[in-house]
Amino acid sequence: MATRERSRSGLGGELAAEFLGTFVLILLGCGSVAVALAGLPGSGRQEDAFGAGNWLIIAFGWGFAVVFGVYIAGGVSGAHINPAVTLAFAVRRSFPWRKVVPYVAAQVVGAFLAAGVVHACYRWAIDAYNAKAGVTRPESLDTFSIFATFPAKYFGDSWFGPLLDQVVGTAILVALICALIDLRNTAPASNLGPFLIGMVVTAIGLSFGTNAGYAINPARDFGPRLWTYLAGWDQIALPGSYQYFSWYFWIPIVGPLVGGVLGAVVYDLFIGRVLAARDTAPEPGRTGD
Amino acid sequence: MATRERSRSGLGGELAAEFLGTFVLILLGCGSVAVALAGLPGSGRQEDAFGAGNWLIIAFGWGFAVVFGVYIAGGVSGAHINPAVTLAFAVRRSFPWRKVVPYVAAQVVGAFLAAGVVHACYRWAIDAYNAKAGVTRPESLDTFSIFATFPAKYFGDSWFGPLLDQVVGTAILVALICALIDLRNTAPASNLGPFLIGMVVTAIGLSFGTNAGYAINPARDFGPRLWTYLAGWDQIALPGSYQYFSWYFWIPIVGPLVGGVLGAVVYDLFIGRVLAARDTAPEPGRTGD
Amino acid sequence: MATRERSRSGLGGELAAEFLGTFVLILLGCGSVAVALAGLPGSGRQEDAFGAGNWLIIAFGWGFAVVFGVYIAGGVSGAHINPAVTLAFAVRRSFPWRKVVPYVAAQVVGAFLAAGVVHACYRWAIDAYNAKAGVTRPESLDTFSIFATFPAKYFGDSWFGPLLDQVVGTAILVALICALIDLRNTAPASNLGPFLIGMVVTAIGLSFGTNAGYAINPARDFGPRLWTYLAGWDQIALPGSYQYFSWYFWIPIVGPLVGGVLGAVVYDLFIGRVLAARDTAPEPGRTGD
Amino acid sequence: MATRERSRSGLGGELAAEFLGTFVLILLGCGSVAVALAGLPGSGRQEDAFGAGNWLIIAFGWGFAVVFGVYIAGGVSGAHINPAVTLAFAVRRSFPWRKVVPYVAAQVVGAFLAAGVVHACYRWAIDAYNAKAGVTRPESLDTFSIFATFPAKYFGDSWFGPLLDQVVGTAILVALICALIDLRNTAPASNLGPFLIGMVVTAIGLSFGTNAGYAINPARDFGPRLWTYLAGWDQIALPGSYQYFSWYFWIPIVGPLVGGVLGAVVYDLFIGRVLAARDTAPEPGRTGD
Repeated sequence: MATRERSRSGLGGELAAEFLGTFVLILLGCGSVAVALAGLPGSGRQEDAFGAGNWLIIAFGWGFAVVFGVYIAGGVSGAHINPAVTLAFAVRRSFPWRKVVPYVAAQVVGAFLAAGVVHACYRWAIDAYNAKAGVTRPESLDTFSIFATFPAKYFGDSWFGPLLDQVVGTAILVALICALIDLRNTAPASNLGPFLIGMVVTAIGLSFGTNAGYAINPARDFGPRLWTYLAGWDQIALPGSYQYFSWYFWIPIVGPLVGGVLGAVVYDLFIGRVLAARDTAPEPGRTGD
Repeated sequence: MATRERSRSGLGGELAAEFLGTFVLILLGCGSVAVALAGLPGSGRQEDAFGAGNWLIIAFGWGFAVVFGVYIAGGVSGAHINPAVTLAFAVRRSFPWRKVVPYVAAQVVGAFLAAGVVHACYRWAIDAYNAKAGVTRPESLDTFSIFATFPAKYFGDSWFGPLLDQVVGTAILVALICALIDLRNTAPASNLGPFLIGMVVTAIGLSFGTNAGYAINPARDFGPRLWTYLAGWDQIALPGSYQYFSWYFWIPIVGPLVGGVLGAVVYDLFIGRVLAARDTAPEPGRTGD
Repeated sequence: MATRERSRSGLGGELAAEFLGTFVLILLGCGSVAVALAGLPGSGRQEDAFGAGNWLIIAFGWGFAVVFGVYIAGGVSGAHINPAVTLAFAVRRSFPWRKVVPYVAAQVVGAFLAAGVVHACYRWAIDAYNAKAGVTRPESLDTFSIFATFPAKYFGDSWFGPLLDQVVGTAILVALICALIDLRNTAPASNLGPFLIGMVVTAIGLSFGTNAGYAINPARDFGPRLWTYLAGWDQIALPGSYQYFSWYFWIPIVGPLVGGVLGAVVYDLFIGRVLAARDTAPEPGRTGD
Repeated sequence: MATRERSRSGLGGELAAEFLGTFVLILLGCGSVAVALAGLPGSGRQEDAFGAGNWLIIAFGWGFAVVFGVYIAGGVSGAHINPAVTLAFAVRRSFPWRKVVPYVAAQVVGAFLAAGVVHACYRWAIDAYNAKAGVTRPESLDTFSIFATFPAKYFGDSWFGPLLDQVVGTAILVALICALIDLRNTAPASNLGPFLIGMVVTAIGLSFGTNAGYAINPARDFGPRLWTYLAGWDQIALPGSYQYFSWYFWIPIVGPLVGGVLGAVVYDLFIGRVLAARDTAPEPGRTGD
């Protein structure tokens, strides 16, 4: 029994936490897109679906989704709730490589099942939206966007644009996470790191959100995408679709994984190295003010 | 005298705090719907009443309502200000069962009287709104919505949809409250828990608010509903109404009570159990980073 | 010299702080109305001047105005920056009566001069707005509203409605300030009280802001009102105006003064008394939770 | 090696931090204007580009940009990320004069290169916006506004209005920074100063943002302006342009430098002097409260 409890407080407990943290992330995050797109009583017209007010709902919705996904899992697993964070921490923060695949699996499963709950709660709203727009589910890009991301039309068939966007967005995310948890820097105390990490995601939504839906998290995109594939949006979700972005699914996987490592490297190069040198140098003092 | 003071610092004082906390909750919360619906100088057209900007007013309005309802009562009673929280804490957090009914009564009375104050302050605005819309109070669903909740039209006569919505929304609320006050987890220090608990409600408003008005609190809905029944919206507030949702009043009572317990159970199952095992296991250490 | 410095760190220093705190309050607060009304490139149409998005600008604008007015003056004078707070603290918190008039005078002068700076920065915008609307300054109620408050049209010639609104709004403000600075309650630590006090004003703006402009502070309304009287809006600002609310100026003075004391009394009655009893009672313990 | 590390933890490390902090500032700040102007799916019409919702995106976007620019650099260089702050600290806070030019250079280079990254990520959106508006890049004032600032039309050819705006805006910024880092005042603890300093910029955006784009930071304006000059907006960015504000570039340089010093002087005169007198006076105590 003690052994079982120990094990539970080991990797098993961490995976439960990553699962629940990502589950909360998707409930609140995808839920906010559902509100902005199909839930608001005044919604239902495609051209209004992403006005500035709706975008604020989405940006603060996803930001708070991260805040509370991190608060619920933080004390157990560190609350990565994002494979790009897990990979970057393995590459640059000594996170054990043997845990990477289990963590990512727990995140994807949490995201997949949470998408199912969002779908269960919003299926009336989704059907009403589609009926109003006169489209059927398999081809409803608008309601698909509640769950997963796709590139703006202006990218045409460029894969480089959305990929660059995902790399840059995730690099910002992970570089700032590195800053916000670095006790040698000005890391928030009083357990307010999760609040500020969530506000990083709000900031990225406000500044890099519209190019390609700011997945910046492979689990956040692929888990719900898989759900939509199984739940009726099969003409859109994965390759084979008639949509212009049918090939798209790999970009919010590869872009964030590359961008996350890049962000950690940039942080270490410009900031971490300096702080480390201060710690080890003989009496360097604080030279600037 | 000392006895009377002691008593006052006992259950009587706690009930005074629950009363005032819920009173503040409803003043600020229902007040924000009044602003969004009938107060804004540019309002008065039904189709504009719940655009994205208005929804942000409501989501942050109710969020701050919780923030300050909890701050005012927190030091005395723990500031449940929600029967779903009180019940979940009785079931899963050793809150004394003998206090459950008194707490709930104080919450409902506070909500009922605060609805009266909101009504007193906004009756000019409400009358002007109804006059502009050409409806009388007993049938004015819009102005009724300042006080209590009802399901979106797309649910038709389904009771399962709104009930599911209330269960899920309140489960998220209570699971996150459990996380935010769990000192073994990353609970915010510096007495900032109430701020973050209020932001949970903003997050739920942004992500699960439009299906059925996110009561997620039986007192928040039933107290003001009772007021509207007595104050002229009697055709809407309770069974017997001609409205399609005349049967609705029980859902924001039962849904939150079930959801609150569910949220606490889920938290304990996925997180609390792990943290408890760590505390008791012999030197488990923190295995993840 | 030492004497002069000591004196400066006495009442003189406090008055300098109240002056500058209220100055910052009005710069940021009235400035935000100027942005929402006349500054936004898309503005200039009367019907759009107070849509939901604009109201969010105003509500967060005034909230942050309080946040930073309190942060700049807090360490010196306690940052009342509001005669209603000063009076309530004299009546219920032992603030010295001899300081009440000097504090209020410093607040009003700070508000008056800050209105002058806002006017200096926005006079081009104001003239452009009036030119577009085809009105001259003395009768431009819209641009007057940048500086001072007036009741919603639906109040007609009722003085009771706006007065009730000001009493209730200020009672909420002062009751919550009492909670947020009460160390026996859950007062925020880490010097974050000013942030949350400002968010109280955002919350009141979102929930009680549209009835009568939520002055909830006699200096905030009367100082800028005096400026507008001298700066060309003389047909509106004070009695003698042709406007329906020409008598109005006394309401955002009397209402807040009454409401502030009421709020402190309510807090003490429902919460303060309980907390005091706990402190003095022999070992009462924390009965709840 | 030790020497090289020491040097790196000296001025070199500080410059790396100022570079990266300003880089993050511009990525998130200019990015938010790109979202508000050209990124939102519903955008593309000039008249909608700066409605109230868009302005909220910009105001919170720039605010969070400062929050995270300061968090990433704070522990190394103090995170000025603004020449107006660097100059004011040299004049009034003993920041070493020999570091002023290197700091400013690092800030401008960081801003310039970050503008390049924003441009790289948004060039598809910019081209689509211009195509829809029927203008070419050299004359596209709208897309230029993603990067640098210009005065509102109502200023005509007045240089005094925008200059006054920049002086006042930056004076507010630096006076409040002085307050928020002054440990004798109510400076936020728990390393939350950067959050509140960023919210100062949100507050200024909401209250003084629309007159002239609230550069309030010479590096934030001049770095990206230089980029636009080289990247195709050469008809707008610098003197020689046909635009009414072709002479404008010096105002967001001189105004902030003057305003920053003014803000620090005002803070010291009204608040700092009082707090200093208290520290040195024999037992003055806290006279208020």
